[in-house]
Amino acid sequence: MAPLGEAARVAAVRVGSARDMGPWGKRDDMLVHRRDPFNAEPPRHALARRPLTGCESFYSRNHGPVPRIDARAWRLRVDGLVDRPLTLSLGDLRERFAEREILATVQCAGNRRAGLLEVRDIPGEDPWGPCAISTARWTGVLLADVLAAAGVRPGARHVAFAAPDVSPLADPPQPFGGSIPLVKATSGEVLLAWGMDGRPLPDVHGAPLRMIVPGWIGARSVKWLERVTAQADPSGNYFQAVAYRILPPDADPTRTGPGAGISLGPVAVTCAILAPDGGTPLPPGPTEITGYAYAGEDRTVARLDVSLDGGRTWTQAELDPPPSPWTWQEWRITVDLPGGDTVVTARAWDSTGMTQPESPAALWNPKGYANNSWDRVRLTTTGSPPAPGPTGPGDQ
Amino acid sequence: MAPLGEAARVAAVRVGSARDMGPWGKRDDMLVHRRDPFNAEPPRHALARRPLTGCESFYSRNHGPVPRIDARAWRLRVDGLVDRPLTLSLGDLRERFAEREILATVQCAGNRRAGLLEVRDIPGEDPWGPCAISTARWTGVLLADVLAAAGVRPGARHVAFAAPDVSPLADPPQPFGGSIPLVKATSGEVLLAWGMDGRPLPDVHGAPLRMIVPGWIGARSVKWLERVTAQADPSGNYFQAVAYRILPPDADPTRTGPGAGISLGPVAVTCAILAPDGGTPLPPGPTEITGYAYAGEDRTVARLDVSLDGGRTWTQAELDPPPSPWTWQEWRITVDLPGGDTVVTARAWDSTGMTQPESPAALWNPKGYANNSWDRVRLTTTGSPPAPGPTGPGDQ
Repeated sequence: MAPLGEAARVAAVRVGSARDMGPWGKRDDMLVHRRDPFNAEPPRHALARRPLTGCESFYSRNHGPVPRIDARAWRLRVDGLVDRPLTLSLGDLRERFAEREILATVQCAGNRRAGLLEVRDIPGEDPWGPCAISTARWTGVLLADVLAAAGVRPGARHVAFAAPDVSPLADPPQPFGGSIPLVKATSGEVLLAWGMDGRPLPDVHGAPLRMIVPGWIGARSVKWLERVTAQADPSGNYFQAVAYRILPPDADPTRTGPGAGISLGPVAVTCAILAPDGGTPLPPGPTEITGYAYAGEDRTVARLDVSLDGGRTWTQAELDPPPSPWTWQEWRITVDLPGGDTVVTARAWDSTGMTQPESPAALWNPKGYANNSWDRVRLTTTGSPPAPGPTGPGDQ
Repeated sequence: MAPLGEAARVAAVRVGSARDMGPWGKRDDMLVHRRDPFNAEPPRHALARRPLTGCESFYSRNHGPVPRIDARAWRLRVDGLVDRPLTLSLGDLRERFAEREILATVQCAGNRRAGLLEVRDIPGEDPWGPCAISTARWTGVLLADVLAAAGVRPGARHVAFAAPDVSPLADPPQPFGGSIPLVKATSGEVLLAWGMDGRPLPDVHGAPLRMIVPGWIGARSVKWLERVTAQADPSGNYFQAVAYRILPPDADPTRTGPGAGISLGPVAVTCAILAPDGGTPLPPGPTEITGYAYAGEDRTVARLDVSLDGGRTWTQAELDPPPSPWTWQEWRITVDLPGGDTVVTARAWDSTGMTQPESPAALWNPKGYANNSWDRVRLTTTGSPPAPGPTGPGDQ
């Protein structure tokens, strides 16, 4: 039995009301997994057919209270294995470095955890559906340029980021942080961003300055950035050394120490069906199915397959080129929906020829990260069910 | 029913005798898929517990007759979008550039095709088992250094390689060739190699000079290299524009033109069980299982799981660190074999947290490339079969 009903599960966790969400300027129908810290994703239809998500629908993943920072008093420290430690105001960043803009998708490592929860429970972790992923146009300066100004010393292999948002979820409680390898930090795509879709960053998305690390898990795009440190080793912060790691299925995450498991970084190829979302019965007949596909790091999506028979046969969807090398891609296909229930399955192939694993069962891990299995949505029609047969859509 | 018996299938294609293989200096028990062009892989046990394969066991993939080149008359041309076209003898390469050595694994894009053949036939393609992969210590100079001497011009985005071995399998017949992106070509790991394990390259492995492109499919490690061309676009050679591409399952490869499908490059995480190989019944009880795991591009293998119940539960094998960032890794685990038949399943996770797809059925493609599904070997014991049960090893 293939796991299904992710949409229904996500809908079930909707809590709160538009009033509660007011401070963060989010749409009324956000699915709020937690109010404190604020964790919410938009419904599937809000991401459909929109290359840019828009701030009001952009998912929000927080590990502690959202800081309210006085941008005028704020400074960025650049230190560690550098020749010239820097202290930079926002004005310094704007004046001393070339402004850059990049279209980039950001995806939470827990995106699509709901599919893993249908396999086995994951205590303490939020049941993210497939919408903990969003895309914006980010404005700022290259981290590479700032590091060049500071002069990275030999021996530095990683660049760590620190923020002031103290997370009660960390053990011990500590501000959020993380690092990326120097080779990624000095690439042409990693940004210190103050702008989002042409406006200053909102508080909930990291004002006054945040990291944007395209192609990597969202946890490395540290918000409310206040310190950049060149160092020999990866970050020892709880959210890199302990959390955001894939543990073996039988590991107890409350007992594993720093360094256990596989540290997540570049995102694996994934996809989701966004519309129809299975929530409303549809008339049988020709129906456009649409969604996103995304390949992390420097990869793009090369093919998107859709199946109405659980993966026995596949048809290629129309796949848009990515708006930038660092974004998701929109796809669509018109299928002829028979009466009754139809399970629609989608899978993507990246530009190196890698594709998604079949089922969340094989990917289940104790913290519930990196579910990039085939996406499945059950569509119900207002017509009568098809005659039963060995290849019917209902035998999944 | 999971595909099994890959070892048996490969054994069935063994043809020829030690006499036939004499010219290439290969071991007597190579599994020869084709004598002309010469295509052969070693048996599983020959790769087991050996970080370096050794020339006599190294798999051999050829698309045409093996050229015999007079190394003294041979020259390498470096041309295209460069400021200073070069013509270099072997002596020039040795004198003008720093000698470099790299341990690197080379894997054929068709490795483990036999697993796909159990799903559906693939006419005209050889049934490679899991041993079209080998590792050597290569000696030569960095392609990056040679390109720097030639001065790559703006506008160059790819570097193409040409060889003299005319392949009758190409349409139209043409010498073998291919290209890699400039960013890979100028990396610190791509070699123009004249040496293999401390000796001059043998003819069958590309004498006098070959490419070594670590982490990418073997087809880009062009043998008998005679020309390196900086250019704007990827190679139009048949073996890149038409072959070595993943086509959708229902595509007819005899009718697809250049550019169809997904061009293969970096290799996806894979693994194989090498010993025991399932060929001989074993006594029940503690048994060491060993094999290789390999992740392409700049990734390594972070975890190797073994299951005796078809993937319901997994145990982590002991995994050696890679001898270099560009090689496979050896793993081993001692399991308690019950009486009767046991299917052993292995899967690897790469350093980004990506893992292998479950079954070859989902990966089947018309040319039979890139089967990186879980590996499975059926082991038979000399003892009596276990009592049947719902989670027994025989119900796969």
